[in-house]
Amino acid sequence: MPDKVLIFSRFPKAMMVRIGERFELMDTGGKPAREVFSAEQLAGVRAMVTSGSTPIGGAAMDVLPKLGAIICYGTGYDGLDLAAAASRGIAVGNSPGANAASVADIAVTLMLAVTRRLLPADNYVRSGDWAAAKPSPLMRPQPGNPGRKVGVYGMGEIGRKIAARLAAFECDMAYFSRSRHDVPYQYMPSLEALADWCSVLMIAVRAGEDTNHAVDANILRRLGKDGCVVNISRGSVIEQKALVAALAANEIAGAGLDVYEKEPHAPDALTALPNVVLTPHIGGHTLDSHMAMQDCVIANLEAFFAGKPLPHAVKGAVPA
Amino acid sequence: MPDKVLIFSRFPKAMMVRIGERFELMDTGGKPAREVFSAEQLAGVRAMVTSGSTPIGGAAMDVLPKLGAIICYGTGYDGLDLAAAASRGIAVGNSPGANAASVADIAVTLMLAVTRRLLPADNYVRSGDWAAAKPSPLMRPQPGNPGRKVGVYGMGEIGRKIAARLAAFECDMAYFSRSRHDVPYQYMPSLEALADWCSVLMIAVRAGEDTNHAVDANILRRLGKDGCVVNISRGSVIEQKALVAALAANEIAGAGLDVYEKEPHAPDALTALPNVVLTPHIGGHTLDSHMAMQDCVIANLEAFFAGKPLPHAVKGAVPA
Repeated sequence: MPDKVLIFSRFPKAMMVRIGERFELMDTGGKPAREVFSAEQLAGVRAMVTSGSTPIGGAAMDVLPKLGAIICYGTGYDGLDLAAAASRGIAVGNSPGANAASVADIAVTLMLAVTRRLLPADNYVRSGDWAAAKPSPLMRPQPGNPGRKVGVYGMGEIGRKIAARLAAFECDMAYFSRSRHDVPYQYMPSLEALADWCSVLMIAVRAGEDTNHAVDANILRRLGKDGCVVNISRGSVIEQKALVAALAANEIAGAGLDVYEKEPHAPDALTALPNVVLTPHIGGHTLDSHMAMQDCVIANLEAFFAGKPLPHAVKGAVPA
Repeated sequence: MPDKVLIFSRFPKAMMVRIGERFELMDTGGKPAREVFSAEQLAGVRAMVTSGSTPIGGAAMDVLPKLGAIICYGTGYDGLDLAAAASRGIAVGNSPGANAASVADIAVTLMLAVTRRLLPADNYVRSGDWAAAKPSPLMRPQPGNPGRKVGVYGMGEIGRKIAARLAAFECDMAYFSRSRHDVPYQYMPSLEALADWCSVLMIAVRAGEDTNHAVDANILRRLGKDGCVVNISRGSVIEQKALVAALAANEIAGAGLDVYEKEPHAPDALTALPNVVLTPHIGGHTLDSHMAMQDCVIANLEAFFAGKPLPHAVKGAVPA
C-alpha cells in the first residue's frame, strides 16, 4: 500500500499527477485539513506537500500527530515556522534550484518588457494608432542595455542566473547579499550602496524577517528617475505602498512584478499604472521547472518513508 | 558655411539634432524633395541622409544632380537601388553594427514575451481575474529556456548578439546563413534544416531579393505546434499572409514581430491574434543606439565632404 501524503496548499491537479503515481494523496484543496478529513484519517499522515509561501505554524502541524516531514514544492519556505517544525522533530525539505532558470527568465523578461516599454508598444500597433500616425508613446528613446548598471539583491541560484543572463546583454552587474560570493560581479557593501549605484534593481533575495520591506521608499528613491525595480522573490521584500507611490510620482521609471504582498491581490493603485508589467506569480511555471520541482518532492518523500535523511533538506531546519 | 545635407526620409526631429549641429539640414519631412525645395536649392545638394528602408531609385537620385553620397541612418539599405547609385558614382554609407545590441535586445524581449505569454499574464493580473480566482489563461505550463532549440537565421552582428544572449539562457543554439561563421553554434546547411531542428526561429538576416519571403508556410510548418518565430529584420523576409494563417490555425504557437510587410500597417488579421507580441519597429530605438547611429552618419558625412572614402561604406556599393 502506498504511503499517505497530505496536500496542504491548493495546487493545480496537473502538478500532482507524478507525485500521485507514487503516493496516496490526501488533497485538502487548500482548505484546513480538519474540514476535509477526519481526525482518524489525519492520524495516519506522516508527510505533507505544501507551497513554501502558505503559512504553517505549530497548530497546523499538531493536527497531524505523526507528521515527520514537510516537503515544500519549490524553493521558498517562508510560510513555514521552522522552529516549530524543529521542536516537533519534523524534517523540512524543498526544491532548491529546481525552478532557478525559470524564475531568472521571468525576471529578465520583466526587466526587458519594462525598459523597452513593451506593453505600450504592443498597444500602439494593435490599436491601429501606429498605422494612423498618431503620436507614439515611445517617442523619447530610453537607455539600452550595454553599460546599463544592474544590481542584483541576493546571490543564490536565482540571483546568479539573473546576473549571468544580464551580463550577456552587456550590462554592468553588481550585487549585494549577506555574504560575498565567488562570482565575477562587483560586490556592494549594502543595499543602499547597490541602489545608489544601479538604475535597475533585481530582487532575488530569500524572503524572511531580515528582508521584510527591505526595499522601501528610501531604496527606491536611490534608483533615480530612470530607475526600475523587478521583484520575482516574494511580495514581502518590497514595501508595496511605497512602490506604488514612487511609480505614481515618477520618482522611478517602472517596475516588473511577479509577486505581491497579498497574492492573488494586486491593488488597484498598482494595476492602474501604465509603467508596470505584472505577472501572476508564474516565475517557476514552466514544464521543465515543474518537472524538476516534482523530482525533488518525490526524492524527498521516498527518502523520508525509507527512513533516510532528505536529499533536499532546508538548511538549518534540522529536527531537534 | 556648413555643407548642405538633404534629409530624405521622415525622421523625428530629435534624431537629427546632433547632425544638424554640423551640417545645414534640408528636411523634406519624408515628402518628395521637389515638393519641398526648388530645383535651384536641390542643385546644391551633394549628400543626403535616409532611412535604409525608404525606396530610392535612380529617378529620386537624379533630382539631385550633384548627389555624391547617400548615408543610411541605421544598418539596413534594402530600399536603395545600389546599382543605380553605383552607375551615378554615388557612395553609399550605413551604420553597421551601431544598433546591433538594441535590435538583438528587442528580439530576445519578443521571444521571452511570446514564450512566457507575457501579455495574457499581465492582463490576468490587471483585469482582476487573478484576484477573482477566474480560470487562468496560463494554466498549462510551457517549455522553458534551458535546452530549448533556438535557430538564428543570419549571423551578422545582430544574429551574433542574439545568439550570445540566448546562450546565456541555457538554450541550444544553431544557425543558418549563406556562409559558415567562426561562432560556437551548430551550423545548419539550409533554412529548412534549421526550421526542422529548432522550435524558435529568430530572423536576423539582411533583407534582399534572396531572402524575400524566405520564411513561408513550409518553413513555419517545420517549426511545429510549439514553434515560435521572431522577426526583427524586415517584414519582407516573412510571407506575412502565411504567418497569419499558421498562427490562426495554431500550426505554430506564437510570433513576436518588430517589422511588417507594409509599415506602419499591421493587418487586422494579425493584430486580432492573442498569441503574438507586436512592436512598432523599435528595435534600434534606444538612446545609445541612436547615438552610435548618429556617430556613423556624422563620420560618413564629414569624410565625404573632406573628399575621403566613407569610413562606414556599404560593402559592394562602390561607385563606378
